[in-house]
Formats: sequence, structure tokens, C-alpha cells
Amino acid sequence: MTFKASVLTLYPDMFPGHLGQALAGRALERGDWSLEAVQIRDFAQDKHRSVDDTPSGGGAGMVLRPDVLARAIDTLPADGRPRLLMSPRGRPLSQDKVRSIAEGDGVVIVCGRFEGIDQRVIDSRQLEEVSIGDYILSGGEPAALTLLDAVVRILPGVMGNQLSGVHESFEDGLLEHPHYTRPQVFEGVEIPAVLTSGNHAAIEKWRREQSLKLTQERRPDLLVSTGQTQPVTK
Amino acid sequence: MTFKASVLTLYPDMFPGHLGQALAGRALERGDWSLEAVQIRDFAQDKHRSVDDTPSGGGAGMVLRPDVLARAIDTLPADGRPRLLMSPRGRPLSQDKVRSIAEGDGVVIVCGRFEGIDQRVIDSRQLEEVSIGDYILSGGEPAALTLLDAVVRILPGVMGNQLSGVHESFEDGLLEHPHYTRPQVFEGVEIPAVLTSGNHAAIEKWRREQSLKLTQERRPDLLVSTGQTQPVTK
Repeated sequence: MTFKASVLTLYPDMFPGHLGQALAGRALERGDWSLEAVQIRDFAQDKHRSVDDTPSGGGAGMVLRPDVLARAIDTLPADGRPRLLMSPRGRPLSQDKVRSIAEGDGVVIVCGRFEGIDQRVIDSRQLEEVSIGDYILSGGEPAALTLLDAVVRILPGVMGNQLSGVHESFEDGLLEHPHYTRPQVFEGVEIPAVLTSGNHAAIEKWRREQSLKLTQERRPDLLVSTGQTQPVTK
Repeated sequence: MTFKASVLTLYPDMFPGHLGQALAGRALERGDWSLEAVQIRDFAQDKHRSVDDTPSGGGAGMVLRPDVLARAIDTLPADGRPRLLMSPRGRPLSQDKVRSIAEGDGVVIVCGRFEGIDQRVIDSRQLEEVSIGDYILSGGEPAALTLLDAVVRILPGVMGNQLSGVHESFEDGLLEHPHYTRPQVFEGVEIPAVLTSGNHAAIEKWRREQSLKLTQERRPDLLVSTGQTQPVTK
């Protein structure tokens, strides 16, 4: 079963972008997933191919018209794929959400531009607003590409042996511990002795402590949400 | 003054990617910013051009060697640009951070791949770990492209009149209110009457209330951090 991604955008040439290379690109070539970019402007009906207009109630910027976007969405098959709208107003993307999307048959993603999108098409076409982070992008396209990278990476067959996927940040609610590899001495600094001790229990304990310490320093919010404050044995 | 972005990556062909188009692409052509992608593999010294090795202490995946990455970083001029490492272990990117980067002369961005990067080069080269969100990507490249999109967008001269930048999500700590535009009636649904009333105070009040309601529903964390729980007049 091929995971089918459809992206509605005013900049279809931005796709597949970086998803055409490396892990995601090889998976695309193999047919593990498919990607279509739909030009929203093709569904404008006036002679100027207008897709936007001034905001009701005044204010700066332009708003994407509901009728044009609705027509674009309605050309896609009604196959039950979730319909996302990339937007800083959305619920924050999480790894759990990425997993739930990857377990489905595909996804429809609407990329906003301009000041925003008419609320009536968001409501009537049941677009789920998703945010990849608390910052403002030039449009939804970089967000869509980022979300798809996260999803494609965990589709069946994509990672193979190249990436482990075994232990990662967020998997257990903690940031990942530091990594080391050869050379043994780099600019006079050795790899921490415990890691070359061969004592697997000690290594596991050290890594867990480092993860907790880093999470406490940088992301205490993660500890609050999981309720972890002490090192625990897995 | 041209904002100078240098990206260290194993996939230089992913750049400029979507940044070569639309707003960021035109700014790149105009010289409002510059982008160089440095191939980390060019700094490997063995005959296989190895950049990674197995993790000390065992475990799945591969770790980027500190010596190879250090050599790549050291070829860049010591011009004081901040050096970021895109990583889910990093502090979350915020619009404040985007602004602070955009106010500087440029940025150096290291893109991780594999299981991680040797901690010694992160320490010795003072790489600041930054995360664009709580999800796992195939590598740092989609994150670097996303961060640069956010930064380039607000560089002097880039937005011009195309995007307003006047009122946006996060600017006042709240999610943005709904938008509406023509047609007046879309599939039987009218634009909220207040927006076409011409009463600017009422419009402002309605928008503020909608922003607060949406933020309370979707992002109560934002209200806690700003201490806002009631509509306030700007």
C-alpha cells in the first residue's frame, strides 16, 4: 500500500524539494510513498486567476478565498485521508501525531500563504490546523515538507537498516544522551571512560542520567508532562 | 549588508530547495542574503571518505565523527556568526530567536544525520543545539531550511509590501483570529456581521476575543506564559 500525499499550494515547484533526495527520495522512487502537488491557482475562475482578496473588517495582508480553495480540495478523491492545514494557529505537531499520520493511507496538506485562509473553508472542508513550531514561516510549504519528512521516514520499509529508530529523543519523553565515536582522543579530550568500560549496566545508567540532566536543563516542560524527576530503570 | 548563511551537510543538493523560490528565492537573487552549502564529506581523510563510526558504548545507528566535522567548521571564517546544530535535543526555536538571528550578519548551521554527532565537537566548536519541534526528522536539513525560511522572511527589504508582518500569531502571545474575505456568502455561510459593520472598535474587540478563545482551546500553555486570561485592550 503506497502512502499518498497530496499538497495544495501556490508553489507546486517547491515539491518534492528536499524530499526528492536521500532517504525520502529513494522511498519515493521505490514507490513506498507518492506525492502530488496541486496548484491552487488552477481553480481560480476570474480572468486574473485571483486566489486572494482583502480581509473583511480591514487590516493588512490578503486572505485566500474560500471558494477557490474549496474547488481545489473537492477535486481530490473522498478517500478519508486526513486533511491538514499548516498554520501557526494549529495544534503543535508531535511525534505521536507523526506516527498516527504514517499509519494511515496518506494525507492531504493545504499550504497557506498571505495573511491567512478564509475560516469558512477551514470549517466546511474540516481542515485540521497543525503547527510545526512557534515561529512564522513565509507559507505552509516549508512546514508541509518538514511534516512529510517526519512521516515518510517511519513508513514501513523506508528506514531499513540505515537509521536505527530504536532509541530517540521523545521516545521515552526525554532528550537523547550525548554520543561519542572514534577517535578515542579528539583534541586532547577522551571519550567518557564508562562508555569504553564494557559494563553495559553502567553504560545504560550513565546514558539515562545524562538524558535526564539534559532534559532538566533544556526542557523541564517534558519532565512535568511525563512526571519523571528521577532516573528510572527501563 | 548581505546576511550570510553557511550550511554544513551531507546533502548539499538539498539547498537552496524551497528557499530558491517565491519570497526567499527572489531575495536570494537580489542578494539580500547568500547561501552556501558545505559538503561535510569533503573533510573526511580516509580513502573511503568515512564521516561516521559506531557509537562508543554500543547501540544502534552511527555517529558523526568529531574530527571530520571540526575540519569542515574550521574552514569557515571566524566572523562571529552564531553556529547552530539542528537537533531534537536543542532548545525550541521561537520567533524571538528567529528575530535575533535575523538581526545578525548571518548564521552557520550544522545538519546532523545518523544517530547523532560526537559531543566533543559540539562542545569544542560551541554549537548551539536548536530544535524546530518535538518530532524526529531524517536529518537536520529540513529543519535548517525551515529555520532559514523564517529568518529570511524578516530580513530588511525582503517582505516589502507582499506580506504585512503587522499582526501575526505569537506577536502578542496569542494565536491569530479567524480571517474572512469575499465572497460575502460562501456555501450559504455569511461573513460574521461585525466584520462588515464598519465599527472598528467592535471589529478589534471581536478579533481579540476570537484570538483569546482559540488560544485557550488550543494552546493554554501560551496564556500561562504571558499571564493573560482576560481580553485586554491594546
